[in-house]
Amino acid sequence: MFRDVLAAHNRVARACLAQALPATGPLAEPMAYAVQGGKGLRGFLVIESAGLFDVQTGQSQYPAAAIEAMHACSLVHDDLPCMDDDDLRRGQPTVHKKWDEATGVLVGDALQSLAFELVTDPAVGPGEVRAELARTLGRGAGGLGMVMGQALDLAAEVATEPLTLEEIIALQSGKTGALFEWSCFAGAILGQSDPEPLRQYGAALGQAFQIADDILDVEGDPELVGKAVGKDEAAGKATFVSLLGMDRARRRAHELCDAACDALSQYGEKAELLRDAARFTISRSN
Amino acid sequence: MFRDVLAAHNRVARACLAQALPATGPLAEPMAYAVQGGKGLRGFLVIESAGLFDVQTGQSQYPAAAIEAMHACSLVHDDLPCMDDDDLRRGQPTVHKKWDEATGVLVGDALQSLAFELVTDPAVGPGEVRAELARTLGRGAGGLGMVMGQALDLAAEVATEPLTLEEIIALQSGKTGALFEWSCFAGAILGQSDPEPLRQYGAALGQAFQIADDILDVEGDPELVGKAVGKDEAAGKATFVSLLGMDRARRRAHELCDAACDALSQYGEKAELLRDAARFTISRSN
Repeated sequence: MFRDVLAAHNRVARACLAQALPATGPLAEPMAYAVQGGKGLRGFLVIESAGLFDVQTGQSQYPAAAIEAMHACSLVHDDLPCMDDDDLRRGQPTVHKKWDEATGVLVGDALQSLAFELVTDPAVGPGEVRAELARTLGRGAGGLGMVMGQALDLAAEVATEPLTLEEIIALQSGKTGALFEWSCFAGAILGQSDPEPLRQYGAALGQAFQIADDILDVEGDPELVGKAVGKDEAAGKATFVSLLGMDRARRRAHELCDAACDALSQYGEKAELLRDAARFTISRSN
Repeated sequence: MFRDVLAAHNRVARACLAQALPATGPLAEPMAYAVQGGKGLRGFLVIESAGLFDVQTGQSQYPAAAIEAMHACSLVHDDLPCMDDDDLRRGQPTVHKKWDEATGVLVGDALQSLAFELVTDPAVGPGEVRAELARTLGRGAGGLGMVMGQALDLAAEVATEPLTLEEIIALQSGKTGALFEWSCFAGAILGQSDPEPLRQYGAALGQAFQIADDILDVEGDPELVGKAVGKDEAAGKATFVSLLGMDRARRRAHELCDAACDALSQYGEKAELLRDAARFTISRSN
């Protein structure tokens, strides 16, 4: 059931995104390439959280497409040689491998712009709603993301050091978490309701997702994960697993899953698919 | 007079931008560094075009700061080794030289996000205005920029070829032009008026600016320009000067300046500083 709805919402978000991509020009092909594949978990969260407030897919598909565009932007830039230097993404050559680094930089920039164009599409709703979606998305990808990155820095006890590659990676993790949070409370903005419960759900979910990612990097099957594994350890990167150990990391992921589900209590049965999403997040194999 | 107002508007836009920058964290210093300097011509255009409709600086300073953040984003990314590979910008080491390439990529991404956060600040105006500013800024930096880049491609008669570095540079020029246009019609959006005359002004101004840039790359004093000159020719880059020759390029810049001024006729005396801006654009030495 959850997987069926995830797939269905993903088709809706991808179709909306595909419509917004440039049809011609030098970036048309690499942009379309950059957004293909992926489970569409973030877009699912937007559509499903909007559904709690009876917001129709015809409106929520735009912010769903936007968060997938923003996510694709961060993947393309993260894969660049000067960042994580990854050759494979979802089992395919990364954008800068298939084209070149300049294309990778520009595709990411264009996808970020597109995300803001999508959340402010007139079909999304009243101006106040669209402006608030754009403002919080900007803050999530920029300001808040940094604050969260810093919090991770503090956890790793490197906060007093100058800028290091490790801090940059922590910052990126913060950005990932902020985008998860946004995916969830965007539904409440669309529904013109209190975003706080969904913000809490999204924060817990985002951290659980990151821990699951770290666990997959240690124990995952590269065929299923679709990218190289064991990279974090080889790079001496501080992860939840290296900081907490495997057992405590796994326990923490389960606690976060429970916290995420608890945050949805006021929505009752209507939020059951969002609870499934939290369980899926910590049990996924890719 | 024009230079005084340019400087005054620049101080307002910079102060607004400085307030919005992160105060702490690993990107605080490189982001502040990336936005320093610059004449603030784009921010001036926002504030001055908004003034045609009696929109106060307290509102227009946010989109003015936003366009300067977006401009700084494109400069930092353009300077990267995989793009134009520039070591100097405004006479100072570029972000990736002073820090590293990863910092350059992330600073640009964060500045783009910040731009959208700024245009959607509640102080800017009603939701419809803020949403429209964000939507058009997203389209300008993404979609429209690409269309303009393509038009330049066609002019260079390379449109049937696959993606080349030249096309990428053309695309960047398109982006620059689109941001100039946005700076001008943003004032009409703020004033809830027809954006068309200011769009025409901005389009002519943007192309005149690009021609003046190409001329400066050939004839400019590197001390005044604040960056290396003669790079375009050395790189075999197609520019307005290489395509048209110096005389025709200069004439075309003057025609565009006249067209820009003509587009403002309905605003009368109130638009005199915007006309001065057009004249300044083609006569500047840096």
